Amino acid sequence: MSVTTPQGFRAAGVAAGLKSTGAKDVALVVNDGPRFDSASVFTANRCKANPVLWSQEAVKDGTIRAVVLNSGGANCYTGPEGFQTTHAVAERVAEHLGFGPIDVVVCSTGLIGLTNDRGQVLAGVDAAYAALAGDGGGTQAAEAIMTTDSVSKQVVVEGAGWSIGGMAKGAGMLAPQLATMLVVLTTDAVVPAADLDTALRQATAVSFDRLDSDGCMSTNDTVTVLASGASGITPSLPDFADALTRACTDLAMQLLRDAEGADHEIAITVLNAATEAEAVEVGRSVARSNLFKAAVFGNDPNWGRVLASIGTTSAQFDPADLDVAMNGVWVCRQSTPHADPSEVDLKPREVSVTIDLKAGSERATVWTNDLTHAYVHENSAYSS
Amino acid sequence: MSVTTPQGFRAAGVAAGLKSTGAKDVALVVNDGPRFDSASVFTANRCKANPVLWSQEAVKDGTIRAVVLNSGGANCYTGPEGFQTTHAVAERVAEHLGFGPIDVVVCSTGLIGLTNDRGQVLAGVDAAYAALAGDGGGTQAAEAIMTTDSVSKQVVVEGAGWSIGGMAKGAGMLAPQLATMLVVLTTDAVVPAADLDTALRQATAVSFDRLDSDGCMSTNDTVTVLASGASGITPSLPDFADALTRACTDLAMQLLRDAEGADHEIAITVLNAATEAEAVEVGRSVARSNLFKAAVFGNDPNWGRVLASIGTTSAQFDPADLDVAMNGVWVCRQSTPHADPSEVDLKPREVSVTIDLKAGSERATVWTNDLTHAYVHENSAYSS
Repeated sequence: MSVTTPQGFRAAGVAAGLKSTGAKDVALVVNDGPRFDSASVFTANRCKANPVLWSQEAVKDGTIRAVVLNSGGANCYTGPEGFQTTHAVAERVAEHLGFGPIDVVVCSTGLIGLTNDRGQVLAGVDAAYAALAGDGGGTQAAEAIMTTDSVSKQVVVEGAGWSIGGMAKGAGMLAPQLATMLVVLTTDAVVPAADLDTALRQATAVSFDRLDSDGCMSTNDTVTVLASGASGITPSLPDFADALTRACTDLAMQLLRDAEGADHEIAITVLNAATEAEAVEVGRSVARSNLFKAAVFGNDPNWGRVLASIGTTSAQFDPADLDVAMNGVWVCRQSTPHADPSEVDLKPREVSVTIDLKAGSERATVWTNDLTHAYVHENSAYSS
Repeated sequence: MSVTTPQGFRAAGVAAGLKSTGAKDVALVVNDGPRFDSASVFTANRCKANPVLWSQEAVKDGTIRAVVLNSGGANCYTGPEGFQTTHAVAERVAEHLGFGPIDVVVCSTGLIGLTNDRGQVLAGVDAAYAALAGDGGGTQAAEAIMTTDSVSKQVVVEGAGWSIGGMAKGAGMLAPQLATMLVVLTTDAVVPAADLDTALRQATAVSFDRLDSDGCMSTNDTVTVLASGASGITPSLPDFADALTRACTDLAMQLLRDAEGADHEIAITVLNAATEAEAVEVGRSVARSNLFKAAVFGNDPNWGRVLASIGTTSAQFDPADLDVAMNGVWVCRQSTPHADPSEVDLKPREVSVTIDLKAGSERATVWTNDLTHAYVHENSAYSS
């Protein structure tokens, strides 16, 4: 159940003292081959952290042999000195493993504006290298990347003679084009880098990219997939992309359920849109309405706030002919009250909102959380 | 200090039973001339309430003689029946005053999806007509339009022999292109309708349009200005536009200070932008960051969350060369830590964030509030 489930991977997670709690804070995932194909996607935020600036360059040739990750400091807005730390970490990993630093993706998470002690991080890399293991190493690594996460997140999807393993961290700032979210995926299938890239973009477009916990986009988001080819099996691209999508969706739902302070997971499904992009635009507008999200926290099936959000978009629809259901009850038909909202029970954690735009035949689901006292508390008391 | 301060206006505010509390809920503002010039701006939300659908047509000829407003129900998403109620209200006002209903702007505020009892509203119109008064009528009207407002909002700006009076309601959903915000402005200056329109758009663009309390756009927002010409004085357009801007800015700041559950008023000033529009875009992105707003509530000068928000915009800037000050302390220079954040005291209600984009010479200020437990409480317990 981890990144070391597929053949050809070792991993480790160790405590290097970056977290004041003494918890594990440096993780290393190594691809032992025989192939080293990789693909990555990064935050769309223009103010990117140093590890993202490094890794964006490192991934360009489609070859990555290791991913090193630290929690306890995002190395973001730390200037040239922070970039040098990222570079030194990549070099140390490469020295241990006998390849070049340009084959190492570096990820960091934690406080922004905090410069980690370089010696501490490098000592962590040394310890992680020494602890690399196939069995159990993946789970140690998944624990080492947690910040405000309450549980570690892992997944395995089995193919025909090959598999995909994955781990993720993230518990807020889960927004468009990713989140304070680090994800490493591994596979022992034979998948050339170009196909990996195609599959990864397909998978993230309908999973992580449709998760919008609080509308805030992080500076460090990285999703990397590594393919060792160790199974010797070459799946068809559709089969592989489908499995990768399932792995990413599973991890995305784990992130959603662990969002900071949330009481509800909300799936907003937009039906009969003119285009899929418009369905996503409408879903995201509702996912970003603080008024709607606070109403869900208060168990109030407030469809008026849903319509008010839809009205802010440029999607095609007739403002006088919108239908909205909450948990399957059509509380609004033709933009007017329909079923009695008291029929909607919002006490269960899982909430569904269905919007019928009557403008076409495309659809999309966007996921978000409610806005709670605990969210305000966690994000007013904890810096990130 | 009210809409009846300028010559030529009468107003009233009465209790018609729309509010279960028995508080005043129907207001009427009448222009007795000799001129009846007017201009209005409305919510940009495409899902508009019935009174907005009516009033948008009524204002097109530049002549409005009365504004009738009710709280206790927004008449929004109430379908054709709700529109008929709006029309009946305009007709009743017109019958009393002896002109056509097309010269009446109708405004409603309160719960969405709630159909007000037509007889109750019309009885309120009758009572308001009977109570019309020059002295004190404006203050009664300002009280009758309150919903979750904790105080009524009024303003007077004096010109040379003429004046502007105004009233506003709104305490949340204060967002782009207006908010759950109703504003009536009056003046006894001689200002032709076309000039009124120019002045009003100038004034709202830098006042109400730059208020973004919670990122949510209302369905009922209306700002109407009525000019009676009763002073006989014709100010220059720049003089009048300047006074109107001061009146709108004063009311906007009153709305900001009364935002639901807020602990802080936050002014985000963006300096040295390539264009004014980009300065507004950057300011608004910060105003919409729940993470940043929660940090201010927690008295945490979290400039990292400011940079993370700036990075989501398309404005021109160098991501490695941004400066950020909070309450005058430059905590970030060149996108790296500068002054010790502990020098920033965020306990006072008024907070300033200054962002230097170093990309040009334009600037803009956007106002918002912090994200508090009280905001979540009020918006999870109160439907709108």
